[in-house]
Formats: sequence, structure tokens, C-alpha cells
Amino acid sequence: MHVLIVHAHPEPTSFNAALTDVATEMLRQAGHAVEVSDLYRSGFDPVEGPDHYAPRADPHRFAALAEQRQAGQAGTLPSAVTAEIARLERADLVIFQFPVWWHAPPAMLKGWLDRVFVSGRLYTSTKRYDRGHFRGKRALVSVTAGAPAGTFGRGGRGGDLGAILWPLHYSLHYMGFTVLPPALAGGIQGHGYTYQGAEALAGHLEERKRVWAERLHRLDGDVPLRFPGWDDWDAAGRSVAAAATC
Amino acid sequence: MHVLIVHAHPEPTSFNAALTDVATEMLRQAGHAVEVSDLYRSGFDPVEGPDHYAPRADPHRFAALAEQRQAGQAGTLPSAVTAEIARLERADLVIFQFPVWWHAPPAMLKGWLDRVFVSGRLYTSTKRYDRGHFRGKRALVSVTAGAPAGTFGRGGRGGDLGAILWPLHYSLHYMGFTVLPPALAGGIQGHGYTYQGAEALAGHLEERKRVWAERLHRLDGDVPLRFPGWDDWDAAGRSVAAAATC
Repeated sequence: MHVLIVHAHPEPTSFNAALTDVATEMLRQAGHAVEVSDLYRSGFDPVEGPDHYAPRADPHRFAALAEQRQAGQAGTLPSAVTAEIARLERADLVIFQFPVWWHAPPAMLKGWLDRVFVSGRLYTSTKRYDRGHFRGKRALVSVTAGAPAGTFGRGGRGGDLGAILWPLHYSLHYMGFTVLPPALAGGIQGHGYTYQGAEALAGHLEERKRVWAERLHRLDGDVPLRFPGWDDWDAAGRSVAAAATC
Repeated sequence: MHVLIVHAHPEPTSFNAALTDVATEMLRQAGHAVEVSDLYRSGFDPVEGPDHYAPRADPHRFAALAEQRQAGQAGTLPSAVTAEIARLERADLVIFQFPVWWHAPPAMLKGWLDRVFVSGRLYTSTKRYDRGHFRGKRALVSVTAGAPAGTFGRGGRGGDLGAILWPLHYSLHYMGFTVLPPALAGGIQGHGYTYQGAEALAGHLEERKRVWAERLHRLDGDVPLRFPGWDDWDAAGRSVAAAATC
């Protein structure tokens, strides 16, 4: 199995970095090929905008999707984007590792979605959702949070984890990925392990190693998250059932 | 009333820009003071990271919240951040205008949250949610989307609008804002009005002017969105009721 870990944290010695290192080591020990895309380290620019496109589909007005489609067809997509697409094409499993900032991924990862999931090249009006480009590939979101894991239940103070991750999960579903249940490392105090001490960190990492080992052993047994698909919608894109989206 | 419009779209002639212009004009005509924070135009950097902090709370390890607290106390927050905080302090109503990209705000706006909602300065463990810093101020999210509005119902192809906006809405609730029901302009074809033609744009703008006029006239009558607060949680931050988060 080829695994891509998309990593989004500014600190190389952060708890997130430690989790990515642990996952890389464990997956390789299990015989898988692992590639890491460290967005901060590579200096990825998360801001979609006109500077990324030349020649322009329309030099007078910037329309992101129109520029993406034209650049994808003309072969003029930014190298940082084509590199990420190549990594996705190689991957059987994509792991997203990041800290929950404001009930969502950091801007660095959000912008990766904005720029890398290229209109036309990776999806069209008919090549989406359960007919998406990455059909057959699995995605797994692994996050850290400052609040204790117990606060992320339904109605909890931290917010329901399913609601926090729904936009990313649904975007992955849109691209055709089979989305596995997420992994949460709570109580990381919201700012990496700097203020947690080496002992607490070691404990967290040991726990995380166990969690990852369990996930790896039962990955094929994981029950993927369920999202509505083409059979659930009428021609106008309305639900034909009482499908819940979160 | 003082209104701040936080605007996040790269194209000055986009449908979003037209909506912000219309809102500015109408609100001023209604006698309100309006300030616009155009994040792309001002070149706001949405990437939270070590480059924004000097001196560092910890020069060896970057921990965002620790650096934010230290900079807030030392008065060394980045000028781009203090300017946004000043605008928020002045505002009675904050409108967020952006296109829905990948079921969420563009990275530019997400990073505005990551950097501007400063730990310590604007929130603490006890000064959050219904005890938040911006208690008494109202927030209103106005978005455009390529898919028709009808696809954003529960279980619809576009995804439930409440689920799409929940992370931003809950973050605003976290900061103490009273969150008003969102405004959606659907069917903008995902890439501004470039491919929609002047006639369709004019129709959309006229419709939007009517919608805004209605919202302005009944703003005080709007029923705010409901989110769990301190009375809904036990000491561990768990829900003491069946509060739904999305």
C-alpha cells in the first residue's frame, strides 16, 4: 500500500509532527510505502488567486475554477499543485494530520484543497462524489485539539467532532475518496506539546502509537463514514430521502 | 450602527465584490457607518506561523496560542492583526462575504480567524461562548456558491448549508457573537459571474438588493442561530442535554 500523509503544522517538533513521524515509521514497518507532504516545510502557498496562472483564461477577471480548468488543459498548472496531484495519484491511502484551529483545518491545509483539487483535471459535474476521480482510495483524518476529547461529543463544549470535520470529509467524498472514521488526540492544550512536558508527551505518543497500531491492524475492517451519493439525489440535486449530512 | 464587512474574494469585479458594494451602499443609505476589510486587496497573510512574532515567547518551538498570548500582553501583535481587532471592536455588526470553496471559507478567510482571534487578548478559558469577548455584537455570514441554492438542503448534493457554515458560526459563537441566519446566493456557477453574462448578473444583483433590503429592515427581528452555552455543559465540557451541534 502507498500512503500519503498531508501534514499541516508550523512547528517541526510539534505533537502533530510527532504523530506524523510515528505514523510514517509504523506504516513503513508494516511494509507500506509512505510519502509525507509537509505543507509548512515546503512553503506551500495556500492562497488561490491570479498570480498562480499564466497565461490566464481571462486576464481581465479572475475566476478560480475557469483558470484551473484552462491551466489543467494547457498543462500550465503550478508545479506545487502538479506535485501534490502526482502524490495523490500514487496514494492508496491519504492521511491528513493537522491541529484543529477554529473548528477547522489551518488555512495552510484549507488552501491546499482550494488549489490542489483542480476543476476539470480532478472533477467535473458528473465525475464527483461516489463517481469521483479518487474512487477506490481511502482517506483518514487525524487531528489534535487543545480541548479534552470528552468535550467533542454531540453538544459538547468543543463542538461535535463530526460537525468539525464534516466539510473536509464531505470534500474528500466529493473527490471520490472512501472516508474512514477520524482519529482525535485531545487535550494537547491547543499549542503543541511545548507546555506539556516531555513526560506527558511521551505518554501521549505511546498512546498514539497504540491507537495507530490498532488502526493499521484493522484498517480493512473500518466501517467508512457514510455520505449521500448520486442515488440519493433527484435531478435537481435535492435529497430523495432523509439523508443526514452531519 | 457600525458595520464591518470582512470580504474574501480575489477578483475585484466578482459577484462577491458586487454584493459587498451593494451592502456597503445600502447600509450607508440606511444611516449606518460601514467599514470593509478586503483581505485579498490588503494582502493579508492567512498563514499563522513563527514569522509573525518577535520577540518570541519560545524561540525554539513555535506554539501559536503561546505566541499570541505573549504578543498580546507585550503589545507586539502584527499590525495587520491589531488593525483587524480594532475594526472588530468598533463594529456592532460583522458581515462575512465570501464564496464557498470546498464546503468552507477560502483559506484567506480561514487564516484571518487563525491569526485575528488572538488567544488571551480576545478569549480565555472562561471568556468564551455566551461569555465571549464580543458579546452583544452580531455576525452575519453571506456566501455565494456555484451549485443552485436548492442543492444545499439537508442531504442535498451541495451539502447542508448549516453543516457547511457550522465551523465558522460556532467559532463566532465562541467569540461571543450573536450569529444571525446566513445569506446564500446560489447558482453563481462556482467562478464568479464572468461566465454568467451582464444580464444574469444584473438579475442576481437586483435580487440580492431586495434580499439585503429585507434583511436590513428586519435585522432586529431576526431569530439568531442557537448554540450550546455554559449552562448546557457540565464541568468537563460535556453536554448535559441532547443539544444538537449542527
